[in-house]
Amino acid sequence: MTDTRRHDVASITRFVEQLFERAGADAEVAQVVTRVLLEGELLGHRTHGLNLVSRYVAGVLDGQVKARAQDLEQLSDSGVASVFDGHYLLGPYCVERALASAAHGATAQGIGIAVVRRASHIGCLAAYLKPYTDRGLMAVVYSSDPSVGLVCAQGGIDPIYTPNPIAAGIPTEGEPILLDVSMSSVTLGLVGQCRDAGTTLAHDVLMSNQGEPSNDPRDFFTTPQGSLLPLGGQAFGHKGFALALMVEALTSGLAGHGRKDAPQQWGASATAVVIDPRFFGGLQAFTDETGFLGRLVLGSRPVDPQRPVRLPGQAGLKLREQALREGVSLSPAVLAALDQTAARLQLAPLSTD
Amino acid sequence: MTDTRRHDVASITRFVEQLFERAGADAEVAQVVTRVLLEGELLGHRTHGLNLVSRYVAGVLDGQVKARAQDLEQLSDSGVASVFDGHYLLGPYCVERALASAAHGATAQGIGIAVVRRASHIGCLAAYLKPYTDRGLMAVVYSSDPSVGLVCAQGGIDPIYTPNPIAAGIPTEGEPILLDVSMSSVTLGLVGQCRDAGTTLAHDVLMSNQGEPSNDPRDFFTTPQGSLLPLGGQAFGHKGFALALMVEALTSGLAGHGRKDAPQQWGASATAVVIDPRFFGGLQAFTDETGFLGRLVLGSRPVDPQRPVRLPGQAGLKLREQALREGVSLSPAVLAALDQTAARLQLAPLSTD
Repeated sequence: MTDTRRHDVASITRFVEQLFERAGADAEVAQVVTRVLLEGELLGHRTHGLNLVSRYVAGVLDGQVKARAQDLEQLSDSGVASVFDGHYLLGPYCVERALASAAHGATAQGIGIAVVRRASHIGCLAAYLKPYTDRGLMAVVYSSDPSVGLVCAQGGIDPIYTPNPIAAGIPTEGEPILLDVSMSSVTLGLVGQCRDAGTTLAHDVLMSNQGEPSNDPRDFFTTPQGSLLPLGGQAFGHKGFALALMVEALTSGLAGHGRKDAPQQWGASATAVVIDPRFFGGLQAFTDETGFLGRLVLGSRPVDPQRPVRLPGQAGLKLREQALREGVSLSPAVLAALDQTAARLQLAPLSTD
Repeated sequence: MTDTRRHDVASITRFVEQLFERAGADAEVAQVVTRVLLEGELLGHRTHGLNLVSRYVAGVLDGQVKARAQDLEQLSDSGVASVFDGHYLLGPYCVERALASAAHGATAQGIGIAVVRRASHIGCLAAYLKPYTDRGLMAVVYSSDPSVGLVCAQGGIDPIYTPNPIAAGIPTEGEPILLDVSMSSVTLGLVGQCRDAGTTLAHDVLMSNQGEPSNDPRDFFTTPQGSLLPLGGQAFGHKGFALALMVEALTSGLAGHGRKDAPQQWGASATAVVIDPRFFGGLQAFTDETGFLGRLVLGSRPVDPQRPVRLPGQAGLKLREQALREGVSLSPAVLAALDQTAARLQLAPLSTD
């Protein structure tokens, strides 16, 4: 089941779209979800890339996850501010529609915002940004999941909120700056990887359920569960904690649906803000400034001469370019899962396409 | 010159307003600047409170800092997005006008944003928020100073950008959540305090100009200068670094005036975003959610039983209530500087009012 070939982006796109369509998705939904997951894969976010396809399709097939564009309900729209209820529709479609709505407001008046509640899993926030920076827009996305508590308050023991990432795409003179960072020290995914590998984390980024800082993933997976420390750790976690509360307010707070509603199903609250620099100091002045800043960063003396200083997103964009040129190389596990999903849907496997 | 009395807020307000007016400020500018600096003092931000009055007045008197409302130039306004040039007008007036403009857009359409370039020193971002949360609005303020480089890129040695704070006021059912955090590990102020006191910092939050992490403030005040590490420190500083770049883009990028222009005078780029929850899930649902989240946080088991978990801004709001009730107690140094400034302006001192 190993696969050392590289799959070209066009054929892998068509293959994944067909999986979603056969599972019951509209063509429009299938296209958007495929594009976002593939973009996560291309940018090197392999935990939020094509590995999610089989899980998403399974969710649709068992009825937990909706897959039709009409399931996205727009609750309000002021022209620059809108709210959607995803009713647990495939999350990438929900977030993309929110971004498109926010961009519509931004290009009309300078800024737009759209909030989605009850989106199903939304993948990797970095994967949404480039189509907007390509248009000279700055896009910011926030998310939280009110059905899950993983991160403790600063000075507290109990897991309360989610890692609550902030992502932003910033146009420059050249490649955009693409950032996507969680307000926790680490993500749950990394803790799970360390547990599976039988290793510890490099730093004390966990809090045991007895209030002891720890780097041992087993101290997280307990009953009651341990916590992830906020960004900043024990010394400066008040900052990550405060920013995480801001993200909760911008997402579940504005959505009018959050922890107070005790949702049982995994589902994101996500907020997209898009800004058009043309309504401010102008796009040229904006990209002149971000380009200048980028050159300052790249010209900085590195601490380790072997590791030049990089801009957020730079490494991912390089991987993306390579994959577009040479094709996508999938891990054997992901390819196996994709082919299994294809078989379940009576479609031909990717590995023999 | 010691002063153990507490000054009531009304008389201290009038005293400071008179200083600014006598120095040449409009009544409107004097009132806003006084209110913001006093609010910083009341919230316990003593490095960004009334200690700044003498410095601000001196700036006005020597012509570096402007003090008339007409010096604030509005460059554009789409209804929800506006840009101001402060021309180095007293910063609190610039930021307050930006917030008011953003709030106007927010109450009309759900969100508003205003960007100011070339504001003189803007004090403490937390001091601007409560008037907006009192109206049921969420207010977010970002700032940077393109004339100063203090913080290094992740993996880099050279100081490039400023601590770039993010502040947010979040309405709840009761007292608001008020957060104000820099995207560096620590602020320059703290490093200076440690140098003056001959102590070291509690953590390695500095980078020497030779690329060595350090907790010794002397490693910052060198030629060439050392750097502050981004929020997250050596292990997770890529997050604070990324967020700081986002703040640079939202402030100096949108302002169309930043590091590329090599400004020589200390001056802030500041961006205010105001959001009205009534255009989203509704104010009631918003404060129900933020109130619920606040109770989860406050109910969290503390790591140290002597230190209950607190919400951002909670301690400051308690100090504020006390000062409003019992009066403001000023440090001898601040009182002396205020009285000296009064004497320079041929006004009666505060200490004998």
